[in-house]
Amino acid sequence: MVVTLQDIQQANALLEGEIVRTPLLAAPKLSDLTGAEVFVKLENLQVTNSFKDRGAFVKLASLSEAEKARGVVAMSAGNHAQSVAYHAKRLGIPATIVMPVTTPFTKVERTRAHGADIVLAGETLAESQQRTMEIIAERNLTLVHPYDDDRIIAGQGTVALEMLAAQPDLDTLVIPIGGGGLISGNAIAAKALKPEIRIVGVEAALYPSMYSALRGEPAHCGGATLAEGIAVKNVAERTVEYCRALVDDIRLVSETRIEQAVNAFLIHQRVVAEGAGAAGLAALIDHPAAFAGRKVGLILCGGNIDRRILASLIYRELSRDRRIVSLRIEIDDRPGILGRIASLIGQHGANILEVWHRRMFLEVPAKRADLEVMIETRDATHADEIIRAIEDQGFMVEVLDAPAGRAAPRLHGDL
Amino acid sequence: MVVTLQDIQQANALLEGEIVRTPLLAAPKLSDLTGAEVFVKLENLQVTNSFKDRGAFVKLASLSEAEKARGVVAMSAGNHAQSVAYHAKRLGIPATIVMPVTTPFTKVERTRAHGADIVLAGETLAESQQRTMEIIAERNLTLVHPYDDDRIIAGQGTVALEMLAAQPDLDTLVIPIGGGGLISGNAIAAKALKPEIRIVGVEAALYPSMYSALRGEPAHCGGATLAEGIAVKNVAERTVEYCRALVDDIRLVSETRIEQAVNAFLIHQRVVAEGAGAAGLAALIDHPAAFAGRKVGLILCGGNIDRRILASLIYRELSRDRRIVSLRIEIDDRPGILGRIASLIGQHGANILEVWHRRMFLEVPAKRADLEVMIETRDATHADEIIRAIEDQGFMVEVLDAPAGRAAPRLHGDL
Repeated sequence: MVVTLQDIQQANALLEGEIVRTPLLAAPKLSDLTGAEVFVKLENLQVTNSFKDRGAFVKLASLSEAEKARGVVAMSAGNHAQSVAYHAKRLGIPATIVMPVTTPFTKVERTRAHGADIVLAGETLAESQQRTMEIIAERNLTLVHPYDDDRIIAGQGTVALEMLAAQPDLDTLVIPIGGGGLISGNAIAAKALKPEIRIVGVEAALYPSMYSALRGEPAHCGGATLAEGIAVKNVAERTVEYCRALVDDIRLVSETRIEQAVNAFLIHQRVVAEGAGAAGLAALIDHPAAFAGRKVGLILCGGNIDRRILASLIYRELSRDRRIVSLRIEIDDRPGILGRIASLIGQHGANILEVWHRRMFLEVPAKRADLEVMIETRDATHADEIIRAIEDQGFMVEVLDAPAGRAAPRLHGDL
Repeated sequence: MVVTLQDIQQANALLEGEIVRTPLLAAPKLSDLTGAEVFVKLENLQVTNSFKDRGAFVKLASLSEAEKARGVVAMSAGNHAQSVAYHAKRLGIPATIVMPVTTPFTKVERTRAHGADIVLAGETLAESQQRTMEIIAERNLTLVHPYDDDRIIAGQGTVALEMLAAQPDLDTLVIPIGGGGLISGNAIAAKALKPEIRIVGVEAALYPSMYSALRGEPAHCGGATLAEGIAVKNVAERTVEYCRALVDDIRLVSETRIEQAVNAFLIHQRVVAEGAGAAGLAALIDHPAAFAGRKVGLILCGGNIDRRILASLIYRELSRDRRIVSLRIEIDDRPGILGRIASLIGQHGANILEVWHRRMFLEVPAKRADLEVMIETRDATHADEIIRAIEDQGFMVEVLDAPAGRAAPRLHGDL
């Protein structure tokens, strides 16, 4: 064990006035939802909207003057890139950020806006890594690794210091695992302050790297996850060792649970969590029995979710709640029918959001047409009431699957 | 002047352990956006997601035992209803909430979930008020008015105590005005602690009640505002007097500015603001010169925005940024054309979100068809690049107006 509580306390002193001291929030509505007594540490309120500001600042501030003058390099398409760029600029350190060429433009621009020199290189992270190593060799820059670095780990561990200072009686911390830096630092700090505290790590089920590493098994990683911030294929030996020593349990959460958790933060706490940031809550929703009655501190570690994805998640959840319902109604292809149905829906107090009217599909008899309406209801009971009302008028109604929001392409017309 | 700093300090002592002591957050990104040095008080993190918890608790806790036993009544379709219901339940006080029959079901349910007895009465607020008065007369209940009450005002004023304790050098507070309770309490507290502080009120331009009252003019109120939480037609004499004595300026903000401010909170701070909650930021965005260089404390007073409206605002903003663009392309009605255009868009790295293909409109020549595609781009420059690429292949491209998201009904087919 290299990093100690004292290292983390020193890191904490360095951070004074340099980062946001985020609130630890009692969350009664999330407690009602999960059966645990939930407190949430809002690291999405950091300036670059994730906890990565902590480690990045500590690492940068710890460099020698010569290292600072030569500059640093980091490889990341995500939160680490923004934190390094932001704090390097504040400290007057030249920063180069290597990003895969596939990085979304907005992420590139947000990092560039912090004054970093951006190098787009590699189709994959491995190729970007190759280029990063070349840059280090060519220009003698210092690498700021996102997690395989004890100073980074000490910086991230300051989250737990703040949590236990604000709420000393927390008995469980639930912490997302990507490369393992966040959980390593916080497990070291928390177990040193309170040996009996329980540390639970959470990974996306699609990327069970630490879970597998601790079992000595190969990790089967892959697939599109909402929690791209913790979709790490290779954890570090360093973080594996910290986790082996200090982490009590690791839970794997499905995409569905992550999506529910993002929505729960939005609805109940009115804060934006990215998928990785919601992973802890996802674990509580997934297996409430494991946390029932415990005083649980969740680290909402980041809020950087793509806006279009966020909007799409909101629609999907409204569909699941049947507040948005799509109906296919078979009608006679003659004037007045749409008016009748639309009026019926209006009389029952529902909003019509979209309408499609089709008569050119072979599955529809020649003299008939298909009417598809997307309506907004007050809730599932209200939706049923409207469907019954339409059926009572003699129409055949089919309830369509929940739409995936604008994220999913819809083809209209006979292409 | 009836409410004093001492009253507010006493209210503050009452609130200890009863509400969330919300953070005042330095907001560098909002500072960059507006040119002021911005700090945000996150009252959306209260348990019922608005500042109304403060006044409601103080009022309820101040009742005599006899009054508590008989119970209280409040009239509100919004945040006040939830706060009264929530704290009445905690204090064991029977609560009746009168809501207009038009109140959205989710709001009714959320209030009922706090254990209140809900009375749906009246098509308008005036009719609900009538029923409220009858209930008070029939059952001898105590009215908890949302703003025309000095205890409520004292409770709301505790926000400024916390803000000035956290950041004593704030020189301006920007505070939304609905009935005027929030600004009255906070102006009293802030001016007593720091006489030179500037108090700026903000109203939705569609509901300039306080603005007009202070000028002795009739207010022209009406229209659908995103800031329904401050869409109040009648302010109270009591709050008008406090504002006349203590408020330095009132700014009216347009719906567009309110919408921008909701989006700015979402993007830069990763928090959810309702329209009223974003009104303060809207005023800064609208007229930055009035706040340039000042240390401004904004009260983000509530986060209770309808989810569908929030999703719709996100899409509208993406359209404004041209990250979502709809194109109408006139094509020959023969096989292979859609494939060509779709491939072209894909080669340029844009996502196709929706496709409509029409050939039945009279405006389209008989042998031709209209193809409408909604695409997701990296930014406006990328959008232009794609449009040029399609035009270079000899197609006519028309850029359609920004869609309003799913909020606006779209009719497809010849109805």
